[in-house]
Amino acid sequence: MSKTLDICLSPAQFSLFDVKGKVVVIIDVLRATSTINAALENGVKEVIPVSSIEEAKKYKAEGYLCGAERNGKKYEGFDLRNSPFEYMSENLKGKSVVLTTSNGTRALKMAENADQVITGSFLNLSSVVAFLKEQEKDIILFCSGWKDRFSLEDTLCAGAIASKSGIETTSDSCFTAKHLFQFHEKDLLSAVKQSNHYHRLAHNGVIKDIEFCSTTDKYTSIPKWNGKSITVV
Amino acid sequence: MSKTLDICLSPAQFSLFDVKGKVVVIIDVLRATSTINAALENGVKEVIPVSSIEEAKKYKAEGYLCGAERNGKKYEGFDLRNSPFEYMSENLKGKSVVLTTSNGTRALKMAENADQVITGSFLNLSSVVAFLKEQEKDIILFCSGWKDRFSLEDTLCAGAIASKSGIETTSDSCFTAKHLFQFHEKDLLSAVKQSNHYHRLAHNGVIKDIEFCSTTDKYTSIPKWNGKSITVV
Repeated sequence: MSKTLDICLSPAQFSLFDVKGKVVVIIDVLRATSTINAALENGVKEVIPVSSIEEAKKYKAEGYLCGAERNGKKYEGFDLRNSPFEYMSENLKGKSVVLTTSNGTRALKMAENADQVITGSFLNLSSVVAFLKEQEKDIILFCSGWKDRFSLEDTLCAGAIASKSGIETTSDSCFTAKHLFQFHEKDLLSAVKQSNHYHRLAHNGVIKDIEFCSTTDKYTSIPKWNGKSITVV
Repeated sequence: MSKTLDICLSPAQFSLFDVKGKVVVIIDVLRATSTINAALENGVKEVIPVSSIEEAKKYKAEGYLCGAERNGKKYEGFDLRNSPFEYMSENLKGKSVVLTTSNGTRALKMAENADQVITGSFLNLSSVVAFLKEQEKDIILFCSGWKDRFSLEDTLCAGAIASKSGIETTSDSCFTAKHLFQFHEKDLLSAVKQSNHYHRLAHNGVIKDIEFCSTTDKYTSIPKWNGKSITVV
């Protein structure tokens, strides 16, 4: 039997998916998985994703650089927000960075029992597709969403990966995500601009981030979860 | 402030929606809400939706006619399945019928705290749209899905209601559902035939049901939940 690909549209549905022995791609376009990709491509040694502010505080107390975002804004008392541009700084090269965000890092921790967990975004779209084509195991694309809700930009990205991979898809969520991507492929930014999260972030003045995160194939690396942190190998 | 419309894509996400004071439309195209609509239009007095087989058995013991479906098939020991055609029988005219299905009747019970609960399907599409336009309260279209998963046919129907109503929509799920419907509007049956549930039911030989349930505006009534049963008033 050939491998299949399914899409989980939100963390609220993740318990319906059995990830054991499968490859899971975490997608949080705005902005966790875009930011992680940018950080690692720009020389950050590893990103340590943590679910809670409390956990991040413990790392901070030990001297780690910490990024913390909640509701699209920097959480007070931390070093960095969740903008990819912040993680391109020369100061971060070779360093470990801890990151906690509203949705993406939580999704990463939820998928820990999978055979492999990688992160995907528009920024590394073609590389993720090439990587998945090489795998022999079933694949689940996991959209981080927004507080358990369905999110347009993550679904678009999952649809892009599913469409371009050509791997057999198995569910109505795949049909819908692929359809959505194919329709908006020529102008992803316009589609992303219609999402709720765009309006949330635009309000916080991060239009530049959104334009960057809607760009395809800026990077070629595959951030991988190694059980403790995310690195590119 | 004018009223808004949101779409809940699956029961797994329903707890994220506050239905108090709102109008909820339950959608289970294949087949609960189509069947309920057909039953009431063909003279059934009321449909009593129950969540569990055990509850349906109690009604049956009291002499009620009971329809029970699980996994697309009739549950052994009951009178009726979940096919709209069965509920058009002369024998059912003026009678109360108890119905339990895998997804639709469960969704109905979940929405009990709303201000009003009605059922929608392609069969009564225009009537539901006209009804919603007259309401002053916020609206939630609740897709019953399949065992907490996202379902294509229910999302298509929610997209149809949202698109045709012109009511302000508020979320990424609305954007996606409307888009899906607008793209497939001219050939709904072909889209429904691409759904997982089509393949489940086709396997059980109920192609005729699926064609019927993909027809728009066969009926004009609005089945309403009155706290005990569903009737058309």
